[in-house]
Amino acid sequence: MPALTPYEQLEQEFRRLHAFKGTLAILRWDAAVTMPRGSADVRGEQLAALEMECHALLTSPRLTRLLERAEANRQGLRDWQLANLREMRRERDHAIGTPQSLVSRLARAAARAEAMWREARDKNDFSVLAPHLDEVVKLTRNRAVMLGQHLGLDPYDALADAYTPGLRSSEIGQMFTTLSRRLPDLVAEALELQGGGPASPITARVPAWKQRHLAVDVMKALGFPFDRGRFDQADRAFTEGVPGDIRVTSCFDPADPFSGLLGALHETGQALYDLGLPPEWRDQPVGQDRGMALEESQSMLLEMIIGRSRPFVTYLRPLFEKHYGVGGPEWSEQNIYRRLNSVSRGPSRMDADELTYQAHIIVRYELEQRLLSGELPVKDLPGAWNELMDQRLGVCPASDNDGCLQDVHWALGAFGYFPSYGIGAVIAAQLWETLRESVEGIDEQVAAGSFGAILGWLRDNVHALGAKLDVPGLVEHATGRPLSASPYLRYLERKYLSEW
Amino acid sequence: MPALTPYEQLEQEFRRLHAFKGTLAILRWDAAVTMPRGSADVRGEQLAALEMECHALLTSPRLTRLLERAEANRQGLRDWQLANLREMRRERDHAIGTPQSLVSRLARAAARAEAMWREARDKNDFSVLAPHLDEVVKLTRNRAVMLGQHLGLDPYDALADAYTPGLRSSEIGQMFTTLSRRLPDLVAEALELQGGGPASPITARVPAWKQRHLAVDVMKALGFPFDRGRFDQADRAFTEGVPGDIRVTSCFDPADPFSGLLGALHETGQALYDLGLPPEWRDQPVGQDRGMALEESQSMLLEMIIGRSRPFVTYLRPLFEKHYGVGGPEWSEQNIYRRLNSVSRGPSRMDADELTYQAHIIVRYELEQRLLSGELPVKDLPGAWNELMDQRLGVCPASDNDGCLQDVHWALGAFGYFPSYGIGAVIAAQLWETLRESVEGIDEQVAAGSFGAILGWLRDNVHALGAKLDVPGLVEHATGRPLSASPYLRYLERKYLSEW
Repeated sequence: MPALTPYEQLEQEFRRLHAFKGTLAILRWDAAVTMPRGSADVRGEQLAALEMECHALLTSPRLTRLLERAEANRQGLRDWQLANLREMRRERDHAIGTPQSLVSRLARAAARAEAMWREARDKNDFSVLAPHLDEVVKLTRNRAVMLGQHLGLDPYDALADAYTPGLRSSEIGQMFTTLSRRLPDLVAEALELQGGGPASPITARVPAWKQRHLAVDVMKALGFPFDRGRFDQADRAFTEGVPGDIRVTSCFDPADPFSGLLGALHETGQALYDLGLPPEWRDQPVGQDRGMALEESQSMLLEMIIGRSRPFVTYLRPLFEKHYGVGGPEWSEQNIYRRLNSVSRGPSRMDADELTYQAHIIVRYELEQRLLSGELPVKDLPGAWNELMDQRLGVCPASDNDGCLQDVHWALGAFGYFPSYGIGAVIAAQLWETLRESVEGIDEQVAAGSFGAILGWLRDNVHALGAKLDVPGLVEHATGRPLSASPYLRYLERKYLSEW
Repeated sequence: MPALTPYEQLEQEFRRLHAFKGTLAILRWDAAVTMPRGSADVRGEQLAALEMECHALLTSPRLTRLLERAEANRQGLRDWQLANLREMRRERDHAIGTPQSLVSRLARAAARAEAMWREARDKNDFSVLAPHLDEVVKLTRNRAVMLGQHLGLDPYDALADAYTPGLRSSEIGQMFTTLSRRLPDLVAEALELQGGGPASPITARVPAWKQRHLAVDVMKALGFPFDRGRFDQADRAFTEGVPGDIRVTSCFDPADPFSGLLGALHETGQALYDLGLPPEWRDQPVGQDRGMALEESQSMLLEMIIGRSRPFVTYLRPLFEKHYGVGGPEWSEQNIYRRLNSVSRGPSRMDADELTYQAHIIVRYELEQRLLSGELPVKDLPGAWNELMDQRLGVCPASDNDGCLQDVHWALGAFGYFPSYGIGAVIAAQLWETLRESVEGIDEQVAAGSFGAILGWLRDNVHALGAKLDVPGLVEHATGRPLSASPYLRYLERKYLSEW
């Protein structure tokens, strides 16, 4: 057997890393779905040992040497392999950019802050969390600076790059500015229009198992691979696992006949993305999804754009009849559609509709930059939050729980994460615009429950690329145009001003 | 922070190993219970990567150096730590005793042989398996010789030591000889006695979910920790996981109201053993169970000795009424007891009753030694099997499936494993004899569904020792007498000759 080249040895190492990461995903899924309640301590040790192993693998001197040798000798490598090499380097640089001691301190501080976040929520009092969040912010600031030096990026960009690879805050900020200019008026116009023909309340109580059966029917129509994936109920909707063993959950509330289904659609979007990744690179960095923003785009496309469209409601209505045994005027297509797309200004991101959602994201994006730079002291967060919510959405949260205690992300040290939600929606709309130009008769297909052509387009133009391009590159490749907020605004305007 | 001693560094390494092994256990449980059917390839890669990691950790030059340094400097180590050091050495020697190339060849040959075993079972034809089993036997023979040289043991003992640490084939053989002298007559006498008062058939069909509820009630009474463990249905009964997250399954057959419950008892025996291991050493080798034979002893004690006793039937009968809604003469205590303890000579180990079970084990023990030594060519196995079954039990299997194709163990390369089943039963009886001498009013407690005193004794005298002593040492410590077949024969004679 001839000796392996440095590049081939790297593939071996990253294959191992992929197996470890897949194992971590199964451990996390198990912890959320099947693990006995009292076993968290044992599981914590297993997760920590395996995460440390991944980190050691990525930061080992051997890996660095192999990377240097492979990079110095690229001839003979194909396109995909060159992209793979770049992604290997990227993963290694992200891992090595934070010293192990800081990783540990941050992990401890985040664990404390998460616990205090729960306590603060119980007491509806931000001051309980404040000193602990302050510690996390300080450590994350250090981390951002060090990582930024390592990656050649501004501190904030260095953090955000983990979720939106290749997209910089200059571009993110520009898109959010464009949105902030148009959205307040659009929300006002939509609210006025909707006020003229509001949806009737839908009062049916539907047992979780019936909702689950309907969701499974829909997931089957969408092509969710039940032989290579699972669908379970949990206390929240999420996707875990690896391509080839993808695990989706949703949470069904008998008092709400829609939220569990929409959660399932959201997660199915991500699962189908994973399913469409390039199989020949499945255990290599280049064969992975292109990060949170892209995952979110696939989820938003399915849950928001397709899942709340009129044709989809046409497809769904007979399924509601069949599975829920419901009927009557409030279950008309018109009323279901309006129920799913009612706009209202509220303080909660998780409960926000499609149209007001971006304001919640933009508020967080602005605040997390000010927290990280030190311009906004942590203790002043509640006031700044409420002020900005009022300014951006005309909403003033009544309490900390309705305000800056909503999300756990910052307590966990996840700064730079929120934009990926908003950018995901922007990307989804841009993909959708091109998709509609490329595939004929989409509305009829959706109404008939036929999703093959849509998914085929997504697979060919998005999923099958894996991580070959960065986020802006991938979007431009798929749509022929640079990433921009315009298609998203066009989509929202058509939907909320012309289609009510 | 002062530098860690070599021994302390070893504890760190083995803590890591423990986390990896626990992860492997969860992955295996998941593969058997929750994994999608089509995900076996992905899971195979995860298992292989993690197993390789464990092997690399155990066989690393660093670990060997640490062991040597710790062994050269034992002062200051407490009893438990000395035992731990010995167990660390033992694990490392077992791992390093087979060269990696041979491990790989064996793994491949075993995977092939397992597949061919299934095909041979489908065709009821041993010749389909023969050449593949031959390959496994040859490689295992090499392995046994090399491992034996490494451990200073005979080849067969080197293999068996993994399942019955410290017990040698000279002792195993002696016990099996003692049993072989008495059992054939005992079986004949029991059969004659039982022929005079046979059990009436019990014909109830009981849905799996009802059987499961009953099993859960019994497991709760026994102290199974449902907050730190799970109980699921699967296609076979097994125990997986780690102490702190122990996962038991059983398989419920509506046509058989007892087998699923007995399976649950069997596995609960092992789970309670794990639960009672010394918590302060839970992530160290000395804190683990004392191998297959001891696990089996705890399973046998609960399933066979306690679970099929008259007092236990007294406890169970009202539960059958409550959960199954059954009654009538065939559900009398007497008839249930006789159903659970009916003796019959049959070709199948898995279906064998308590009294004829050992003959099945002894046949396999004799044959696997002859296969390994080369005295018995693989192709002659069916004839030798049938001849020996006739000789030891008076049964002549009608086909390969009823004969030497029953078990997959040898195809997997698991030689030296079968004795642990038989020795487990022998140990169980010896522990039971001492336990009955030490704890007053056992029968009354069992009949009342009160198992605290029994489990307390087992915990104090067996479970809490972990792997501090080897198998013979542990049994002698717990019972005050050397391991011997006599208590087992006394138990069988009393039960099958006096208590029918």
